[in-house]
Amino acid sequence: MTFNQLYEHILAKKSFLCVGLDTDINLIPEFFKDTNHPLFNFNKGIIDATAPYAVAYKPNSAFYEAFGAQGWNELEMTVKYIKENYPDIFVILDAKRCDIGNTAMMYARAFFETLNFDAVTLSPYMGKDSVMPFLNHDNKWAIILAATSNESANDFEFSGEEPLYLQVMKKSMQWGSIDNTMFVVGATRPQMFESIRKICPNHFFLVPGVGAQGGSLQEVVKYGMNSHCGLLINSSRGIIYAERGNDFAEAAGKAAHALAEEMAAYLV
Amino acid sequence: MTFNQLYEHILAKKSFLCVGLDTDINLIPEFFKDTNHPLFNFNKGIIDATAPYAVAYKPNSAFYEAFGAQGWNELEMTVKYIKENYPDIFVILDAKRCDIGNTAMMYARAFFETLNFDAVTLSPYMGKDSVMPFLNHDNKWAIILAATSNESANDFEFSGEEPLYLQVMKKSMQWGSIDNTMFVVGATRPQMFESIRKICPNHFFLVPGVGAQGGSLQEVVKYGMNSHCGLLINSSRGIIYAERGNDFAEAAGKAAHALAEEMAAYLV
Repeated sequence: MTFNQLYEHILAKKSFLCVGLDTDINLIPEFFKDTNHPLFNFNKGIIDATAPYAVAYKPNSAFYEAFGAQGWNELEMTVKYIKENYPDIFVILDAKRCDIGNTAMMYARAFFETLNFDAVTLSPYMGKDSVMPFLNHDNKWAIILAATSNESANDFEFSGEEPLYLQVMKKSMQWGSIDNTMFVVGATRPQMFESIRKICPNHFFLVPGVGAQGGSLQEVVKYGMNSHCGLLINSSRGIIYAERGNDFAEAAGKAAHALAEEMAAYLV
Repeated sequence: MTFNQLYEHILAKKSFLCVGLDTDINLIPEFFKDTNHPLFNFNKGIIDATAPYAVAYKPNSAFYEAFGAQGWNELEMTVKYIKENYPDIFVILDAKRCDIGNTAMMYARAFFETLNFDAVTLSPYMGKDSVMPFLNHDNKWAIILAATSNESANDFEFSGEEPLYLQVMKKSMQWGSIDNTMFVVGATRPQMFESIRKICPNHFFLVPGVGAQGGSLQEVVKYGMNSHCGLLINSSRGIIYAERGNDFAEAAGKAAHALAEEMAAYLV
């Protein structure tokens, strides 16, 4: 998917919502557990209910790997279902991979070719050669961890005279372009977006941490939005586990709708 | 596996060799490609030929994920085969994962419970809460990236007044102990081991970069070995692709034997 296709979809749907499919077998309704594909069947319900309000989905690989080969198979089924039924939706694998060149190339093959994701999240610790193999696939994206929303982001990301996350953004902005690179910037420190936008005005940011983790959508938009929106706001648990019983899909749809309505107001 | 079990196995086998199972479908002998489980069948040949000389195996998850659910299944078959036939061998998943607490917990479940690995490699970018869930499983290990052997390690790991890799080691040494934490330190800068051993005298280091990447075993041992060996030297391509035809297993065995013989001399 291209930058413009993503932006046009945001305008058309009046939403910049990404729904995180952190599908945990222990948190989905009981009746799915007796089916052959519990993670996929749950995802299907969530996807059909939230697709009118979402421009992106983001399965997290850990939740599928915890189920072994079967989980991997259900991840494949999930991305295939989205691509076949909602082809204009951007699909991110939240994998946070990090490896040397020849290995990164294998990951790129796994996620962009075997699985047909549009984008994958990456940890930048090992530097340029761990990212470059993801930047030479047409219309595919690398989403690089910069300033994450977890508490221990302070350990390294925010340490140093020039904080590591700024070093990462400044350097890795040079490796690709706004057409194939995004950054993860957490919602829990919204004022930070103001200084980040000074060095990185045009890139899209994938923003976790709104909702369950306490970040404010209004504040993120105030400091982080740019002329092409520039934000994909992720919500996982607040949507997919909005209701844990039979009405899980309807409740997820309502939660997504509420977020998208707030977003529509900011897009005017 | 405990620290002492690993050390005793090193003394018994007179080797501290880890064989990296970076099994690439495009590099294995042609005749495997027509079998149902090409990656596993190749690994089985390599494992049986090299097990007399190795104390650890290290499959890299990327090479299996590139094959989708089938690859994941062959990864499961590989770790199961090693555990059933060579139960004293330490098995590492080279996964370099990196995620927030609740997700890291899912990865720990995936690798330590679903797959029964002894250890997993982790990227420390997101800090403590991305590592801790791997440290509360009895006799399981987190192997944290510190100073890697790739060229672009210079981008971030070696930058800063106090280089990031030293910050990572100093801080993360406090999260666990020598019984559940190792560090990845590349062989390509062997003198670096001298200063690293001053701050981290007792931990095991997993050392890639000997052989194909140009690191010298002799130099790494000189600066990096401690009273309990403290080193697992990884070789991947130099062993598993020593010969690409029918004699691949015999050639891998010879290459592993040669490295182990050199190691035995250093262990006296």
